[in-house]
Amino acid sequence: MLNVAIIGCGYWGNHLVRNFYTSTLWNVKYICDKDKNQLDKISSKYSNITSLTNPEQIFDDATIDAVVIATPVFSHFELAKKSLLSNKHTWVEKPLAASSEEAKELIEIAKSRNLILHVDHTYIYTPAVRKIKELIDNNVLGDMLYFDSTRVNLGLFQHDINVIWDLAPHDISILQYTIGKKPISVSATGKSFYKYNNKDIASISFIYIEFDDGSIAHINVNWMSPVKIRQIIMGGSSKMLVFDDMETVSKIKVYDSGVDFKKREDIYDVLIQYRTGDMYSPAIKNYEALSFECNHFYDSIVKDIETDTNGETGLYVVSILEAADKSLTLGGTPIQI
Amino acid sequence: MLNVAIIGCGYWGNHLVRNFYTSTLWNVKYICDKDKNQLDKISSKYSNITSLTNPEQIFDDATIDAVVIATPVFSHFELAKKSLLSNKHTWVEKPLAASSEEAKELIEIAKSRNLILHVDHTYIYTPAVRKIKELIDNNVLGDMLYFDSTRVNLGLFQHDINVIWDLAPHDISILQYTIGKKPISVSATGKSFYKYNNKDIASISFIYIEFDDGSIAHINVNWMSPVKIRQIIMGGSSKMLVFDDMETVSKIKVYDSGVDFKKREDIYDVLIQYRTGDMYSPAIKNYEALSFECNHFYDSIVKDIETDTNGETGLYVVSILEAADKSLTLGGTPIQI
Amino acid sequence: MLNVAIIGCGYWGNHLVRNFYTSTLWNVKYICDKDKNQLDKISSKYSNITSLTNPEQIFDDATIDAVVIATPVFSHFELAKKSLLSNKHTWVEKPLAASSEEAKELIEIAKSRNLILHVDHTYIYTPAVRKIKELIDNNVLGDMLYFDSTRVNLGLFQHDINVIWDLAPHDISILQYTIGKKPISVSATGKSFYKYNNKDIASISFIYIEFDDGSIAHINVNWMSPVKIRQIIMGGSSKMLVFDDMETVSKIKVYDSGVDFKKREDIYDVLIQYRTGDMYSPAIKNYEALSFECNHFYDSIVKDIETDTNGETGLYVVSILEAADKSLTLGGTPIQI
Amino acid sequence: MLNVAIIGCGYWGNHLVRNFYTSTLWNVKYICDKDKNQLDKISSKYSNITSLTNPEQIFDDATIDAVVIATPVFSHFELAKKSLLSNKHTWVEKPLAASSEEAKELIEIAKSRNLILHVDHTYIYTPAVRKIKELIDNNVLGDMLYFDSTRVNLGLFQHDINVIWDLAPHDISILQYTIGKKPISVSATGKSFYKYNNKDIASISFIYIEFDDGSIAHINVNWMSPVKIRQIIMGGSSKMLVFDDMETVSKIKVYDSGVDFKKREDIYDVLIQYRTGDMYSPAIKNYEALSFECNHFYDSIVKDIETDTNGETGLYVVSILEAADKSLTLGGTPIQI
Repeated sequence: MLNVAIIGCGYWGNHLVRNFYTSTLWNVKYICDKDKNQLDKISSKYSNITSLTNPEQIFDDATIDAVVIATPVFSHFELAKKSLLSNKHTWVEKPLAASSEEAKELIEIAKSRNLILHVDHTYIYTPAVRKIKELIDNNVLGDMLYFDSTRVNLGLFQHDINVIWDLAPHDISILQYTIGKKPISVSATGKSFYKYNNKDIASISFIYIEFDDGSIAHINVNWMSPVKIRQIIMGGSSKMLVFDDMETVSKIKVYDSGVDFKKREDIYDVLIQYRTGDMYSPAIKNYEALSFECNHFYDSIVKDIETDTNGETGLYVVSILEAADKSLTLGGTPIQI
Repeated sequence: MLNVAIIGCGYWGNHLVRNFYTSTLWNVKYICDKDKNQLDKISSKYSNITSLTNPEQIFDDATIDAVVIATPVFSHFELAKKSLLSNKHTWVEKPLAASSEEAKELIEIAKSRNLILHVDHTYIYTPAVRKIKELIDNNVLGDMLYFDSTRVNLGLFQHDINVIWDLAPHDISILQYTIGKKPISVSATGKSFYKYNNKDIASISFIYIEFDDGSIAHINVNWMSPVKIRQIIMGGSSKMLVFDDMETVSKIKVYDSGVDFKKREDIYDVLIQYRTGDMYSPAIKNYEALSFECNHFYDSIVKDIETDTNGETGLYVVSILEAADKSLTLGGTPIQI
Repeated sequence: MLNVAIIGCGYWGNHLVRNFYTSTLWNVKYICDKDKNQLDKISSKYSNITSLTNPEQIFDDATIDAVVIATPVFSHFELAKKSLLSNKHTWVEKPLAASSEEAKELIEIAKSRNLILHVDHTYIYTPAVRKIKELIDNNVLGDMLYFDSTRVNLGLFQHDINVIWDLAPHDISILQYTIGKKPISVSATGKSFYKYNNKDIASISFIYIEFDDGSIAHINVNWMSPVKIRQIIMGGSSKMLVFDDMETVSKIKVYDSGVDFKKREDIYDVLIQYRTGDMYSPAIKNYEALSFECNHFYDSIVKDIETDTNGETGLYVVSILEAADKSLTLGGTPIQI
Repeated sequence: MLNVAIIGCGYWGNHLVRNFYTSTLWNVKYICDKDKNQLDKISSKYSNITSLTNPEQIFDDATIDAVVIATPVFSHFELAKKSLLSNKHTWVEKPLAASSEEAKELIEIAKSRNLILHVDHTYIYTPAVRKIKELIDNNVLGDMLYFDSTRVNLGLFQHDINVIWDLAPHDISILQYTIGKKPISVSATGKSFYKYNNKDIASISFIYIEFDDGSIAHINVNWMSPVKIRQIIMGGSSKMLVFDDMETVSKIKVYDSGVDFKKREDIYDVLIQYRTGDMYSPAIKNYEALSFECNHFYDSIVKDIETDTNGETGLYVVSILEAADKSLTLGGTPIQI
């Protein structure tokens, strides 16, 4: 068993505590939150965990192997840096940091001290995304041509970050994990429909990414949609895949349809015929991603190998977020990466 | 009965001939196509129609009241101009013309000769879109904040026009008819995955429009999607609407969910709860849009009033297409309208 | 070309006239209906067809090769008998006759005169049902264990026949064509919610069939359902198939899930996991079943081979309808066949 | 706080322990299971609960207020009887008992000792079913004409009970709670596809119920379906309701469509038009039914009022199960209740 401390006990922190607590690999020694109420609500459910409103004791405790940071984005860098400098393996909520510069510094520190720096891109540990990765690695789709994601739902207005920083990390991390191409330019359009502290905070955004091999990605993120959509279309040269996370079964569908360049007449046959090839929907295992991820983090530490969402992954995501945010401010002008 | 001639007997021309032919208001006197084969296939099905490979006879025939032009886009202007100058009421396939300059000239000629210039934005005559217009006119949705359309499917690669000119006219005409706001800037990103005659022809594009009142529109058009999606989300200040044209029933859903700015804790309640208000799906009549449109065009001529998709509508659409196309070439830089 | 006459110009008769008329294999010489109005509506659309209110001229015309009977069920026997006795190949709407006795007599006459007796079970000529047949013939599903069909929608109250005779022929003909087992007993429950001419006419019914090999079928037919459902589940020993005719794509889904008899603990794993194997949805061609069926009827005549839905098929269907009807009257007591 | 003991720690027992444990109204004093392994797995997660393999200590402990019985059906009667005779309020898993005779005896004992006898028909405590009850109580649907439920999925083969006793209690309890009519006859058909201890155990069944006012119910239960369906259609004289529990949103849809008896011509209009009126889908709260039910049981005890699923409810359900089972054995002959 390794000893872990969890800093930040909000909505997601709660899930983290539950998963680490019920894991047989981890012993949760501390939970920490500035908000005494939050803290008490959680600690009442779990015995033998020490509650703290100040994290310093965690960094000073030599028996702590790993620290989990689930605080607002702006505080990730400071806390993660302290954690790494205290020689703790460090798990940081997505996105890793508020800038790529910060992300790079954290990566450097972790590397120099041979510590695991893990970013909690939970989606990567879902059975569906791992199955997609497997299909792509087996070259089922052929060359990837485009990735088009829609991630919209009602309500999650935030005060500190806009919809890009809130929702797009999911899509970008999936993109990085399954396809992993090098982005060369990013543009973003979008709109803020409210202000917080006199600052516009975009609640709808459309991000467009070009990769070095000519393939593209598009990400539609929206806090104001009446329906919840979690859909990613991946177009490959031989087959195409649709990942619909709102489906209870058949989350992944692979369409045996390439795009053939036919004469006009043929084209209209295709028009009339809804799809041209068979569809296949692989069975997907059923487990909680976060629980899997806790084990993966443990393995990574004891075996001294990087996790599937390491600092570099975090940097990849943050770089694109940063560029998208900048392009948004400029009204959509593409930003080179 | 009015006499009509139909120029262009391809896929859509066929539908036009069938609808005008079975209408009791219209007499189809001529059909015309350069392609003798196309022509013969159609004329064998309908008796008493004269087939022509050259349209000149149509323009010279004083008994012809109206001309329908269903040829490729690049030829719209020339044919429509001739038709109007021959004092024929003129129905032009969407988009009206290849440039806003051309569109303006056609509008001028029609106005000066008091002729009906009608653009075939068929969607506007569907029961679903007319119901949406009715809901918006009755202020069911409140102030319109955003319009987000996805129109993707497999296969329709064209040689003369890209995906913007092919698919986006539908969305822009719906936008114009139901919401009708003044666009001030347009940007578009996207990608060509093939060349024709050494020219790149974009097969995927994402268009972003800002209106003068701060509301926005986003249009995702794609010829390379394994699934056919025809979905428009309209976000209003009081309610939100989803139009899913692939549904056989319940094409329109109105969600009684505004976006309220709550404290963080409340927000997470919303997160867990999928939607916060009732949903209502109005019954929609069942008729063929094109048949309705033929009657509408007839009425417009005999009563001397504009159709719901007149030259100005056509110009609105072409202006946005033109700007989107230009922005696409510039890599997404916004174009002022 | 063969000469055909069509008797009965109601809703379905209209479709028949259109399909025979546009076929290059058939010449529609007569259409016939007692109702002069119905007749005029159709004949105005098609030139060169003689309209009749009395069918006698058809039977007397030696140039007529085939007669299509699309009248109410109670008149099928008399008209089909006359047609066969006049040496015409005969196409009868489903169900073939009002009793199995009648059906048998028609089969006898056709056989003795070497005429084609065809029953219009149109579903059998749909691309989807033909694909299902192909899958079953290739033993994809293994031994068939059960067939469960739901065919419900709003409104189609009839005066002359109940919901069993109206809707169940579709399911029974699909059952016969794809699986083709010998039924040994039939029971039916159900309810009439209105009377016509003081006679109860069941508008909801549930039919249960046992076959000689121990497999079963269940058919749920209902004229009073707010939603239209057209779903058939076929359980085989190795795979299972779902045919959902309301889907625009993926009408057929084959589930790689047999039922394994595991220990209790494993069973609950299955419970939590929604389905245990991959799913596969074959591409299906796109054509109008009735047009295909017209060609098939023609081929059958010129090659002198039975159609896929011959008199025996018609008798199979009628026998089960008859037994179901009888069981319904007896409150659900099983009737041996 | 009241003291509770839970007997039976299988799949559902686990959920019961979790819900009672986290409730602030209940103190879980004992858990009991014959299977030491099961017991240890649970007790390791919760502190301060005494584990027992024999329930006698529970009945002897005067501080125990309530006993929860989550054992196999055949043992319900004996354990519940002991519990009631020990003056404990008693919660029994569905179905209440293995026969209506047993159910009646338990009701008698509870009544004579003024104890709460509660049956765990959890569905009754789901937000969706409570909303349906509210709609029906407000006479939104008019007179109820029919109830048609499909509850099918893969795998849950049981050794002690057949599919009727396993799945149909859900539908019958919903029927009882929302509509509550008096059944007069029950018939059931179905099939066993395997034997256990040489005994056939039906894995597919179709139950048909007639009520004293002429309305009907049909329940389709199946352990061998590749897809999970949880759908109930309720036909009322003024509106119709569809409850689809597999939907994540819009579980309940109310269709503004009665069945009107129109002339034949009108009927075919209905045919073409998929549904005739608006549809409305009420928002439904989001909470765990079992947690709500624990509170409800507590309230019932302290306020001395019956729960919504009391012994009489349990008896209603068992009576129908019993009749269905008998009819199944007789091949579908209706059984009077």
